Amino acid sequence: MSNKLDASDAAWRQAGRSKVMPDFEPLVRTSVPTIEEIIGKPFHVLDDGFVRLIDYMGDDTAVVQAARVSYGAGTKRVRDDRGLIRYLMRHSHTTPFEMCELKLHVRVPMDAWRQWIRHRTANVNEYSTRYSIAIDAAQRTQSGEWRSQSQENRQGSDTHLPIETGNQLSAAEAELQDKARAVYEERIAAGVAREQARKDLPLSTYTEAYWKIDLHNLLYFLNLRMDDRAQQEIRAYANIIGNEIVARWTPLVWEAFLDYRKNAVQLSRIETKIVAALASGEPEIALSVAEQYGFLNRQPDGRLRANRERKELESKLAILGLAPCWK
Amino acid sequence: MSNKLDASDAAWRQAGRSKVMPDFEPLVRTSVPTIEEIIGKPFHVLDDGFVRLIDYMGDDTAVVQAARVSYGAGTKRVRDDRGLIRYLMRHSHTTPFEMCELKLHVRVPMDAWRQWIRHRTANVNEYSTRYSIAIDAAQRTQSGEWRSQSQENRQGSDTHLPIETGNQLSAAEAELQDKARAVYEERIAAGVAREQARKDLPLSTYTEAYWKIDLHNLLYFLNLRMDDRAQQEIRAYANIIGNEIVARWTPLVWEAFLDYRKNAVQLSRIETKIVAALASGEPEIALSVAEQYGFLNRQPDGRLRANRERKELESKLAILGLAPCWK
Amino acid sequence: MSNKLDASDAAWRQAGRSKVMPDFEPLVRTSVPTIEEIIGKPFHVLDDGFVRLIDYMGDDTAVVQAARVSYGAGTKRVRDDRGLIRYLMRHSHTTPFEMCELKLHVRVPMDAWRQWIRHRTANVNEYSTRYSIAIDAAQRTQSGEWRSQSQENRQGSDTHLPIETGNQLSAAEAELQDKARAVYEERIAAGVAREQARKDLPLSTYTEAYWKIDLHNLLYFLNLRMDDRAQQEIRAYANIIGNEIVARWTPLVWEAFLDYRKNAVQLSRIETKIVAALASGEPEIALSVAEQYGFLNRQPDGRLRANRERKELESKLAILGLAPCWK
Amino acid sequence: MSNKLDASDAAWRQAGRSKVMPDFEPLVRTSVPTIEEIIGKPFHVLDDGFVRLIDYMGDDTAVVQAARVSYGAGTKRVRDDRGLIRYLMRHSHTTPFEMCELKLHVRVPMDAWRQWIRHRTANVNEYSTRYSIAIDAAQRTQSGEWRSQSQENRQGSDTHLPIETGNQLSAAEAELQDKARAVYEERIAAGVAREQARKDLPLSTYTEAYWKIDLHNLLYFLNLRMDDRAQQEIRAYANIIGNEIVARWTPLVWEAFLDYRKNAVQLSRIETKIVAALASGEPEIALSVAEQYGFLNRQPDGRLRANRERKELESKLAILGLAPCWK
Repeated sequence: MSNKLDASDAAWRQAGRSKVMPDFEPLVRTSVPTIEEIIGKPFHVLDDGFVRLIDYMGDDTAVVQAARVSYGAGTKRVRDDRGLIRYLMRHSHTTPFEMCELKLHVRVPMDAWRQWIRHRTANVNEYSTRYSIAIDAAQRTQSGEWRSQSQENRQGSDTHLPIETGNQLSAAEAELQDKARAVYEERIAAGVAREQARKDLPLSTYTEAYWKIDLHNLLYFLNLRMDDRAQQEIRAYANIIGNEIVARWTPLVWEAFLDYRKNAVQLSRIETKIVAALASGEPEIALSVAEQYGFLNRQPDGRLRANRERKELESKLAILGLAPCWK
Repeated sequence: MSNKLDASDAAWRQAGRSKVMPDFEPLVRTSVPTIEEIIGKPFHVLDDGFVRLIDYMGDDTAVVQAARVSYGAGTKRVRDDRGLIRYLMRHSHTTPFEMCELKLHVRVPMDAWRQWIRHRTANVNEYSTRYSIAIDAAQRTQSGEWRSQSQENRQGSDTHLPIETGNQLSAAEAELQDKARAVYEERIAAGVAREQARKDLPLSTYTEAYWKIDLHNLLYFLNLRMDDRAQQEIRAYANIIGNEIVARWTPLVWEAFLDYRKNAVQLSRIETKIVAALASGEPEIALSVAEQYGFLNRQPDGRLRANRERKELESKLAILGLAPCWK
Repeated sequence: MSNKLDASDAAWRQAGRSKVMPDFEPLVRTSVPTIEEIIGKPFHVLDDGFVRLIDYMGDDTAVVQAARVSYGAGTKRVRDDRGLIRYLMRHSHTTPFEMCELKLHVRVPMDAWRQWIRHRTANVNEYSTRYSIAIDAAQRTQSGEWRSQSQENRQGSDTHLPIETGNQLSAAEAELQDKARAVYEERIAAGVAREQARKDLPLSTYTEAYWKIDLHNLLYFLNLRMDDRAQQEIRAYANIIGNEIVARWTPLVWEAFLDYRKNAVQLSRIETKIVAALASGEPEIALSVAEQYGFLNRQPDGRLRANRERKELESKLAILGLAPCWK
Repeated sequence: MSNKLDASDAAWRQAGRSKVMPDFEPLVRTSVPTIEEIIGKPFHVLDDGFVRLIDYMGDDTAVVQAARVSYGAGTKRVRDDRGLIRYLMRHSHTTPFEMCELKLHVRVPMDAWRQWIRHRTANVNEYSTRYSIAIDAAQRTQSGEWRSQSQENRQGSDTHLPIETGNQLSAAEAELQDKARAVYEERIAAGVAREQARKDLPLSTYTEAYWKIDLHNLLYFLNLRMDDRAQQEIRAYANIIGNEIVARWTPLVWEAFLDYRKNAVQLSRIETKIVAALASGEPEIALSVAEQYGFLNRQPDGRLRANRERKELESKLAILGLAPCWK
């Protein structure tokens, strides 16, 4: 159920210059039954974290309502709600998505929170370890969860380390975390101010926060943080927020987001030339463009040098059913 | 009724490192009956404008809930909700107020809207005159409503002009507005694109928008726009939003806002010296400080020059029950 | 010339825990000779508007400098400045672009300014018609400049109207603008407050402002406002800012922007399926996908209905050298 | 030296509707010799942190220039630059201060950085421990620097702990930090991805960032973080930025900030009543108001209960040379 900028509004607007304002039809506040059910219930993330929906404002129809005030009553006839939402998403008309708002209660290791908080267009109240004793929980890594440094992606990680190595690393982790907590508690016992006692807590310590954000900025956050290149820990939170909460709350927006943003493919000016050449069966042109833009630099022995942009292009070609001509 | 970060939460947090997450108590979405009643109903402003509440998130207790996650469960014992809200307001702990959100539908002359939109921390969808025919209403001024230019305040206005002058001005206004509308409609009839046809509409033309903002930023807006120095037209909107909507929605926040912000008095470093001197019966010190800071420059004939800062100080002294010693 | 996070910095950082801080090499403030030349000089826009560069902070190397603090000294070896900037643009690592800042002085019709000001992440000081007499200039339209309403694009315009129609429209425009100015001046002469006297000025009245924005947000603005779908008047400003100012100021960033943003092609999830089918010579699959997603709805007489998304796809196929199979 | 919106500009604006745009006088980019001298030089903070000025845009005159475009050429005659800046500060006309921008390179313990980053209206590039090995330095606390928990202020600290306690705490700190670093390096040596290896680094680990912010938001930051209630560590940074950098860069703005913001006293509506009563020698009214608003609650034995708002009022009364009547 939702509030609508209904026919009477439009009629009233067209009437114009009426000194006596007609009554609007009654409005009822937007409410989404499928999401009401999960209010307050924690979705578990990592070993001791969670995401809880606290409150929301608006729904799919609130996006439509806002778009219709911008685009005028005329849009109503030619496009249904789903079509309008997809049009808005496709053309980056982002302001109607700002008309919805979500409030979450989250519990996150400080290390992931340091990334999270970089998204500036949100409202935040974080648990304060100046006022209160730090939460007595730190994220623990199981023996099988240690990831090796990616060689290709300087910021990423690859496969898991062998379990024997993992056993040692997890034991050392437990010992360090216990020691850090003990030092913290000794300081508190000695009368050290909480704001100073906390200074050597590990980044793995859990914190909590209320986090409130509009739907447009939330989708931006999710697009970045659900991505393969995002760190696994924050990705775990983003996946829950997207798939468990937003998908229920605004299903039409979510579908449009997946089609036009998350699963879209962007081709650079140069890539469009290469794709065009390949699609029209002119591999020599594709090769020439690729050479010109440095995609095909070679080592002394003739083998292609590693080139990240070429690799990204190859993934896109695979999606488009095209084979690279340089292999 | 509201959702609370209740005792079970705190207990759970203290328990720590529990791999089995206890259930939270059920939450119900915040709802404020006194404000639900007015959802969708227009408050009339100016001759043809309005403000309508469309939706809201949170209430007084949502502010408290967010503050308690920051300041810890311990605050609960020592301070009730009202005391905590007043403490937050007094100390400019602004983030908990960001946890509440308001969405309005407004109809405003473009001239006032140009000021309104300068507040950047809001979400906006405005009626588009590229997509739709411009709203056929412009703000009209009654004969008795024409205001004279303030001599003291370069940006303000003073008393009203005589009614005879007003009659002439209002007649000329009506003629101009009608002509401007006629030109607009001729352009549309001639097939001119809406985006170009609108270019000579008067600033008094009404526009509409959905406007969504968090409570902290709304109070900032209201503090500026309910002020005597704000232009009368936008002040009319701000007064309605403050007194009719926020006062019902978050009464404890509103009371704290009036006590600690709207009706507070700020004394500059220099003013505190003058007040201290006057309060302890040392007018010669007050005079000396006032001289030193240029409050008492005189014309060749010995009379005090107009000085706006001195005038502001005199208003503050009146509130503090002190007489200036330079008169 | 520019300041660099030079080798000594990196060495110092690696040294670690040094209680005696080594001296950094001297820095000289960034300065871009090619842009210094145009400081203060107006680029003319429309009939009476302009854009003037007032000041700037940073340049291409400031982007690199900021990225290197994020990505570490190691990036220095493997990538030159141009490659790093292109990598950042390609992967939407936007924060380094925020390290550059531009300040302009602009003169713009209020109608275009109403669109301009919707970009919230900028600093603005606009000429105040509360304090000062409104600028005595309004944008005038030449007889050959009247544009017809686009039938396809509800918000756009198409070809120009015939010159005879234009003559009439321009004459009516001149008369209306003159009348509006006369009414304004009569009000001022009668002692009406400036803040009220201005209320019926036409939207075509010029205003001026200082406008300051960081490079990331400026590129976002330019991407939207240089687009074909942007209104011609604001596009004229965006083109000057992009091609005349940014292109000289940060040439490497500008080149990357054109390659990876402005001239990039985005394919939705559905479009990638259609492109893949066409590229691998399976038109029946392409048809089937297009049907399924509503691209090919037909009128009773069998002709394809107008469909904006299909039309957009056809433009993309043209760029990619592929022919649609439904024609 | 600075660029000025000089007389020719004003003349040109008044000329109006000139189709031929007159040349503006040449502009030279703003440059502040007193601040150029310190570009790149580190100010040391804490045991191993620093603040370095990297670049700036604007100066005192840029604030004036922006204000003059808002307030019109007329303001020039009646007010000199200093007076205008003080007027702007006094009346919270904040936008002209946004026309100046500062860029710093800072090295800060992550614990303080967590507070710093909460200021959202800034541009940030932080050293990434996903890309690079974490900086090998953590903030160490000398034996005499351990602070005790404040009893009055739940978030603050008081005096220092005895040196013997400090010795033990510092030894435990060193051991913990060394152990944490050793664990980190073992993980790196074992091939753990940097993004995961860092998870148990202590919050005291230093990070670095480029931080860029406009002058208005910087003053807001400084007002909060130079305050007595701010944590000592971040206060050390704020003091350097304010007293060493901003004071040299924009001396008129800095003076106005100290007079009208930093050293101003704000009296709530209730406090103005009490001050007025005390100033006019009516202590019984002051008592009655104080009672009514809960400032004077008493314990069973008749002594006044601790009350933070009363304590704050007493500090203000002391500044104003008034004695509370309840003692």
